[in-house]
Formats: sequence, C-alpha cells, structure tokens
Amino acid sequence: LLSAGPVAVRAAVAIEKETPEEERPETFLRAADPAAATSVRARFERMIREAQDEVCAALEAADGGAAFKEDVWSRPGGGGGISRVLQDGAVWEKAGVNVSVVYGMMPPEAYRAAKGEPGAADPSAKAGPVPFFAAGISSVLHPKNPFAPTLHFNYRYFETDAPADAPGAPRQWWFGGGTDLTPAYVIEEDVKHFHSVQKQTCDKFDPSFYPRFKKWCDDYFYIKHRGERRGLGGIFFDDVNDYDQEMLLGFATECAKSVIPAYLPIIQRRKDTPFTEQHKAWQQLRRGRYVEFNLVYDRGTTFGLKTGGRIESILVSLPLTARWEYDHQPEVGSEEWKLLDACINPKEWI
Amino acid sequence: LLSAGPVAVRAAVAIEKETPEEERPETFLRAADPAAATSVRARFERMIREAQDEVCAALEAADGGAAFKEDVWSRPGGGGGISRVLQDGAVWEKAGVNVSVVYGMMPPEAYRAAKGEPGAADPSAKAGPVPFFAAGISSVLHPKNPFAPTLHFNYRYFETDAPADAPGAPRQWWFGGGTDLTPAYVIEEDVKHFHSVQKQTCDKFDPSFYPRFKKWCDDYFYIKHRGERRGLGGIFFDDVNDYDQEMLLGFATECAKSVIPAYLPIIQRRKDTPFTEQHKAWQQLRRGRYVEFNLVYDRGTTFGLKTGGRIESILVSLPLTARWEYDHQPEVGSEEWKLLDACINPKEWI
Repeated sequence: LLSAGPVAVRAAVAIEKETPEEERPETFLRAADPAAATSVRARFERMIREAQDEVCAALEAADGGAAFKEDVWSRPGGGGGISRVLQDGAVWEKAGVNVSVVYGMMPPEAYRAAKGEPGAADPSAKAGPVPFFAAGISSVLHPKNPFAPTLHFNYRYFETDAPADAPGAPRQWWFGGGTDLTPAYVIEEDVKHFHSVQKQTCDKFDPSFYPRFKKWCDDYFYIKHRGERRGLGGIFFDDVNDYDQEMLLGFATECAKSVIPAYLPIIQRRKDTPFTEQHKAWQQLRRGRYVEFNLVYDRGTTFGLKTGGRIESILVSLPLTARWEYDHQPEVGSEEWKLLDACINPKEWI
Repeated sequence: LLSAGPVAVRAAVAIEKETPEEERPETFLRAADPAAATSVRARFERMIREAQDEVCAALEAADGGAAFKEDVWSRPGGGGGISRVLQDGAVWEKAGVNVSVVYGMMPPEAYRAAKGEPGAADPSAKAGPVPFFAAGISSVLHPKNPFAPTLHFNYRYFETDAPADAPGAPRQWWFGGGTDLTPAYVIEEDVKHFHSVQKQTCDKFDPSFYPRFKKWCDDYFYIKHRGERRGLGGIFFDDVNDYDQEMLLGFATECAKSVIPAYLPIIQRRKDTPFTEQHKAWQQLRRGRYVEFNLVYDRGTTFGLKTGGRIESILVSLPLTARWEYDHQPEVGSEEWKLLDACINPKEWI
C-alpha cells in the first residue's frame, strides 16, 4: 500500500481500522486540514487519484474485457483509500492499483531520528508524539503470459505536522517511490525500452537521478537470503527531501505519468507469445521470489502488516499463484539461467 | 529448519556457510564434543536421525512410488544436516524431512536475557559471547488431495556451553517443538484422531502438557494480520527446561514417534477422495496463508533467513504451489467458511 516512508514511520503505532464507503469522496483529506485545496498534500492526492484513473483505464483497454473492481474505504479520524483490482483478465492474472491517504502519529524519538538531530537518542529531551500525513499510489501488475513482465510502481508523499507541544516546530516532508520491472525472461529490447523511459523521465529533472535511483532500485529489491534481486530493476528513491519541494512533486507526477508508456508497449508485444508448461513453471517460481521479497523485506508490506493497514489492499501485490520447488537450479546458459544471472548481477541496460 | 529456540538465539550472529557432503557422517557432533556418545546432545541427534529414517520410510511406503531425494551438508566449524525432499509424488505434492545440528555463538546479553537474570540489561556486566549447540528435526508434508491435511512437526534441543571467560558457569538447556495439522477442510473424525494421539502422548508424561501445549500451539501459529490461525493446531512448546531433562528427552522422542500414527491414518482415508477445481482452489488459498505465516511470523524460518542457514532446507516448508485471490470471502455456512471459522475461533477437539 504505502511504503514505510522515512525510518520514523516504521516505529509508528497501529492505525485505526478502516470502514467501507459506498462512494468515492472528493478528497480523503480532513476537512480541517489547512489550505486543503492548494497544499502539497492536496495536490499530491489529486495527482495520485488522476494517475489511478489513467492507469486503470489504459489497463482495462489493453486487457480488452476484464474490468477493475473498486473498494473505497475511510478511517474515522481521517484518511482512506481506493483499491482497484482486476483479477483473471485476458492479459493480467492479477492487477492492483491502489491510492491511500493516512493520518497517524509517530513517537518523538522516531521523528528526531528521521530529522537527523544529534539529540535523537537522548531520552531526557521530552516531546509528544508527532502527527504525520502520508499519501501514495501503489500498483502491482502480474500478467498471465510468462514472457510479459510484472510491473510495480509506487509514489508517495509524507509530511509531519508541528508536534502538539511545540506548535512552531518546523514541518518535515519527504517523497519516495519508484517503478520497476520483473520479467521471468530477459528480452533485451523490452528491458532497454523500460529503462530508457525511466531515464528520460529522470533526465527532465536532474541528470544524477537515473544513475542514483537505478542503483537504489537494485539495492532495495534485494532478496538477501537468495543473494538475488526480485527482477531487473528500474528506479527507486525514498525519504528524499534535499531538492525543491515543487520540483519533487513535479518529478513524482512525471514518473507516475510515464508508467503506461514504459510498460504497455512491452505488454502489447508479449501478451500473445506462445509458451510451454516449462515457461509457465519458471514464471511461477519467479512469482515465488516475488512473494518472498514482499513478505520478508518490502518496507511498505511489512509496515502495513504490523500497523494494521487494510490487509487486502496490502497483499494485493502478491501474485494470484506462485510456486516453490526444492533446490531448483536452471541449466547454465539456458534462458532461465540468463534471467537469474541478471538478478544476481545487476546490469546497465542503457 | 531449526526454530530460533530461546529468545537468545534470535540475536545470534550469522552462522558459517554450509558445504555439500557425499556421505552421511555417523554424527554431526564435533569430534572434540565432550562425552560425545552418552551426552544428551548425542542422544538427541541419534533420536532425530532415527525419526527421520522412520518417517521417510513410512511416507515413501504410503506414497507408493516417489522416493526422497537426500542432501547432506556440513559446516567447517562443526554441525551439518540431512535434508530429504519428496516432490510431486502420488500422494504428496511436497514433503520435506530435515535434521540439522548447529554450533554457534550468541551475544552475552541474549544469553543473560534467556536465563532470566535480573542484570540482563546491565551493559556494565561484561562477558564474552556464549557458544551454543542446537539440534532438531523439522518436517512439513503437503499432500495433493484438498481433503488430505498438511502436517508440520519439529523437535529441537538447545544447549549453551560455559562462556570462554567463565569456564565454571552453568550450562543451560532447553527443549522445544510440536506437531500440528493444517487441513483445508474440517473433517471432525480426522482432527479428533490427530488431537487424541497428541493428548495420549502428552498424558504419558504430564497431565498438564496437552492442555498447555494445545493452547500454546493455537497462540503460536497465529497470522496476526489476518486474525486467524494457520490451521487446526496440535501441540507446541518452546524454551522448556523446567522439568527433568531425561523426562523431556523422553517426551520429545515419544512425540516424534507419534507423528506417523497421528497422521498416516488420515492420509490413507483422504488421499483418494474425489474433488473439484473449487476444492483445489480453496486448498491453494490456504497454502497462501501457510506461506504468509512461515515467511512473516515463524521463528525458525525468519531466524534461518536472517542468520544464513541453508535456504533450500529452510524454505522446503513452503508448498509447491499457493494462491492469493483479492478479498476472497467464503460463503457463510459453507465448508470453506467452517474451516476459516475454526482458524479464527480455535476449538477443543477432544
């Protein structure tokens, strides 16, 4: 659903239980939220909701039959979300596109640690819990065809309010997110196209973004106990606040807009590729790795499970089906081995 | 593989990388291990290796075709294991029966905390790391037929040596383990038979064991984010050292011996039950829950993944295949609902 955001949030206490809603509200922001219409939080919420609409419409058109099922939910104290899932379509086995808005409280030590203050570990520096706001879009798309890759993207914005006992204290904010590709087979043309679109998007904002966020992605989606990455990467960044806020809002917006041009041309090319049972079994084994990463390492998933987020929204990232064979070793030089090699030794694709 | 044992071990540092062996050694104990032949550690190792042989022979006979594949491995500093896996048999989709012996080091704070010493949190009480020994048998058996339940059992023995800087310090030991049943459908006759065998085994040693260890099992195999248990329980205990050591060794031995009489009669009755695609899909959804529990909560699995245990042995507990459907809700009153209800509200079966 949402990533954990800054280290701070991982220590936060449980959030309130969600309740289903009949209708999509205009906004999930609290009515009392200051400058509701023009604030970055309000503009970010509008951005992710537009992105959700656009991505879902494009996916439905590409699937050519199945429709997204929508669940709207809210929390009594403010916040909520819209989960959309397309299951057992013509092209996608399971596709989830969620937006959510969270109001919560984090312990003051976590807040100080996140700000990097030297007194972070000093228990004598008394302060109350810090209210935070988080909004994000999160999506995982698992196609049926073993030659059509899985896509994940997630963009999120995070803010702390002034603490209740220090009304003048500065407000903190962070952006995070990324888009990454997880194929079962390496088709160079596809991986190059995907990374090229990521680089073009990054380059519009800062020439350092693509190389930095590409490496961050390779480092983040690492299944430590396997010594391999979940897939072939893309871009990833977290807790970023050392650029102009407007620039980062623009960057996240552009990243979300680039999902469809980065992904759909690949799907159009591969959705009808003939395949064998062996190809399908290998895809299922890689889906098993996807499950391992998400349940063991992913910050958003593990944070969500621990804090009482909406379980079905969080776990919609898991594939419809997955497989674990004991000690499976692809034959050296095979197509399966090439994918595994690229997951073990990340490559420069462009 | 092994459970984390006492809280202490979870903080232990990574263990050495394993190397494959051509032959099963007589023992995985270090040659220099004191009183090698008569010590509890030696007797426990012999017990689990005999149990592995007996269980594997009984499962192969019941499967009527498939044979276990064996991997033997050792670690340079002592210890090792035997992993046996039967995959895609006539009756079992995936069955793993592993034994292992581990020599490791745990931080002194963890050791003091495990002993319950009041000074546990006092950093001024200096001491070196504490060597530990652990041995265990661990098994998960996933049948193909949706009416034939999954079985898990694991019995382990744990000891600390005297710390290097305090040679006279007392040696600590603990036993842990359990046997539990995870069906996709509630067949009362089967669950009652399974729990009755657990109770009979417990009652030979202490009348308090079955009620205590039955509840401990219901509490342990809890998927917190779902509010439901993995299955229909059995017995579970951990860090137990408040009984006579010989009595507990005898109890663990008897528990391991009761696995086949508790489980095989159920398999014989259910392995050929006719089933539909719907039954199979529900079994696969419950297998997804099994994966969630093992990767997110199970102490043995999460400990093993973090400390560099043998990954294929640890993850052999995962089913061959599993399934996650978005927001699946069984119809109230259906057979699927009855299983879910029993996982949410644990029952007294006997």
